[in-house]
Amino acid sequence: MTKLLPLNSTIGILGGGQLARMLSLACVKLGLSSHILDPNPSSPAFEVAKKFSIASFQDKKALEKFAREIDVLTYEFENIPLDTINYLKQFCKIFPDINALEISQDRLLEKKFLNDIGLKTAPYHKVDSLPEFTASIDKIGFPAILKTRKFGYDGKGQALIENKKSALQAFDLLKKTPLVMEKFIPFEKEISVIVTRNLSGEVVCFDPGENQHKNGILHSTTVPANISLDLQMDAVLLAAKIANSLDYTGVMGVELFLKKDKTLIVNEIAPRVHNSGHWTQNGCSIDQFDQHIRAISGRKLGDGKRHLDIRMVNLLGNDILKYSNSANGALHIYGKKEMRSGRKMGHINYIL
Amino acid sequence: MTKLLPLNSTIGILGGGQLARMLSLACVKLGLSSHILDPNPSSPAFEVAKKFSIASFQDKKALEKFAREIDVLTYEFENIPLDTINYLKQFCKIFPDINALEISQDRLLEKKFLNDIGLKTAPYHKVDSLPEFTASIDKIGFPAILKTRKFGYDGKGQALIENKKSALQAFDLLKKTPLVMEKFIPFEKEISVIVTRNLSGEVVCFDPGENQHKNGILHSTTVPANISLDLQMDAVLLAAKIANSLDYTGVMGVELFLKKDKTLIVNEIAPRVHNSGHWTQNGCSIDQFDQHIRAISGRKLGDGKRHLDIRMVNLLGNDILKYSNSANGALHIYGKKEMRSGRKMGHINYIL
Repeated sequence: MTKLLPLNSTIGILGGGQLARMLSLACVKLGLSSHILDPNPSSPAFEVAKKFSIASFQDKKALEKFAREIDVLTYEFENIPLDTINYLKQFCKIFPDINALEISQDRLLEKKFLNDIGLKTAPYHKVDSLPEFTASIDKIGFPAILKTRKFGYDGKGQALIENKKSALQAFDLLKKTPLVMEKFIPFEKEISVIVTRNLSGEVVCFDPGENQHKNGILHSTTVPANISLDLQMDAVLLAAKIANSLDYTGVMGVELFLKKDKTLIVNEIAPRVHNSGHWTQNGCSIDQFDQHIRAISGRKLGDGKRHLDIRMVNLLGNDILKYSNSANGALHIYGKKEMRSGRKMGHINYIL
Repeated sequence: MTKLLPLNSTIGILGGGQLARMLSLACVKLGLSSHILDPNPSSPAFEVAKKFSIASFQDKKALEKFAREIDVLTYEFENIPLDTINYLKQFCKIFPDINALEISQDRLLEKKFLNDIGLKTAPYHKVDSLPEFTASIDKIGFPAILKTRKFGYDGKGQALIENKKSALQAFDLLKKTPLVMEKFIPFEKEISVIVTRNLSGEVVCFDPGENQHKNGILHSTTVPANISLDLQMDAVLLAAKIANSLDYTGVMGVELFLKKDKTLIVNEIAPRVHNSGHWTQNGCSIDQFDQHIRAISGRKLGDGKRHLDIRMVNLLGNDILKYSNSANGALHIYGKKEMRSGRKMGHINYIL
């Protein structure tokens, strides 16, 4: 049932950004190889992969060739077209399963799934038309957040609506795509749990981290999160419930809000290694990248115990120049040639 | 004076074994690239290098082409021919300097250098002829160890001589090459210090580790070493003295014997990252591979503080099959295809 991929097997990865780069490094440590497919010829992960293919996610011929050369397939981001996965699955095993991908690609399906398994989210309402939009406002009230159902990341594709005027502006901005309106929840903290589930159904969670954002982009994650042990346990159990409900294989990032009433609601899930889990590289003997590769290659999960207190800080744009010769902290640089403002160029893990 | 190599510069590495493989991973984390040259087409480091060249260390044309494509050169083992380094140095900067390489290649020069800077070693005697051999026995007595001056590693090229009969057998075995005879020193422990010195002359030592050997090959390194704090400090100062005396750049492994009288003598030095420093990958935020690349690329040295107690265990030959699905400890597998008995295939770092 759970086939153990032998040493020197090849892990295929769709997407060649920093997450694929760090997954490749995990393959190396585990004695496995990686083969990465990405349309961008200067993908940061190519440099550390045994093999790479430059091809579009729509190029069926290239996809088939790629799939036939690998032993198992995974992906580094959730916006891989479902058609690509559906096409590839005739040639190879793919983890995480398309079901998790589909849910996480669509904020409406995601919230419905979470509510269906008994977890709390912000109240939400589907918005496909102006009448649905006004009905949503009536139901949810101000302030609310209007979001595209698909392809949002790092705060992109969303607008805060505080009154009728900003509501109409937001609707005009986003109306071309299917939308969802969510109640704006004032929260005390954002907490992340990185959960891993392997092919045998073993589940391991890393300790919850506490996230700080700047301009809608993750700035730092600190572990341990400054919340009670009860809440830490709640967060971990909730993440494990999501993974089990999806019969999930691999690492998943679960973002939670701690409301002012000290209860947790789920903000979103990401069926992949997650920026808020980068602290595990220096806080644990097994990091999230190792865990993911272990999970999808039929291995036992590693001991995910946190041994140190860590603060992970993202390096955006030209931050990288300031920090690339820093004596403190563990540097993890992504090797991107172009330094755009707000672009994730690397991170540092500080042992606290 | 200390030129800082910018992001995306290329580090050239001579030798493509596991040490080069882990040096390449350090380059990746620091936002640098590696280009590796090795005659063996299945070198484990090739897979993680941005570029590799399959060429002999005597192939001047290939060496020149290689040297012109890199920004600084280093090497993963001390048995690189000096002629190769002498030829390459007209094209590129090379660290560690050839001086350190020359000393560490020759047990006789090495011991003389160490004694000259005031450090203790086992008593030794040059053996180039039968008369010198018998004179050495008279001077040093039994038991002694007869060693080839050059190209020994993992206990190869040496013979213990306990009496006249074994003495003659040992001499017959090894007489084709220049030899050195050393007094056999009964020691309590073998201790290693990994010292790093950068282009500005900054020196950082990792905590001393305690080594266990099996069949002449390193089996495990444990930190902290079970020796007094005074001795730990002596060990570190002694390693720093060696690095400073050589005006050294990069990481150096210094192997020490703790004698029964509780004094330290130097066994040997290795001008490279060292097997007994692999524990740093999981015990420190900066490991020996990062430190080496930082040192030779004009960077500041990282904080080498040890945060955890670690036992590193080498995986030899088919150990790798038993451990490759282990849930405990951090695996570092070298990706070697052929599993020969006694061959270093990987290691595990256990957090204690």
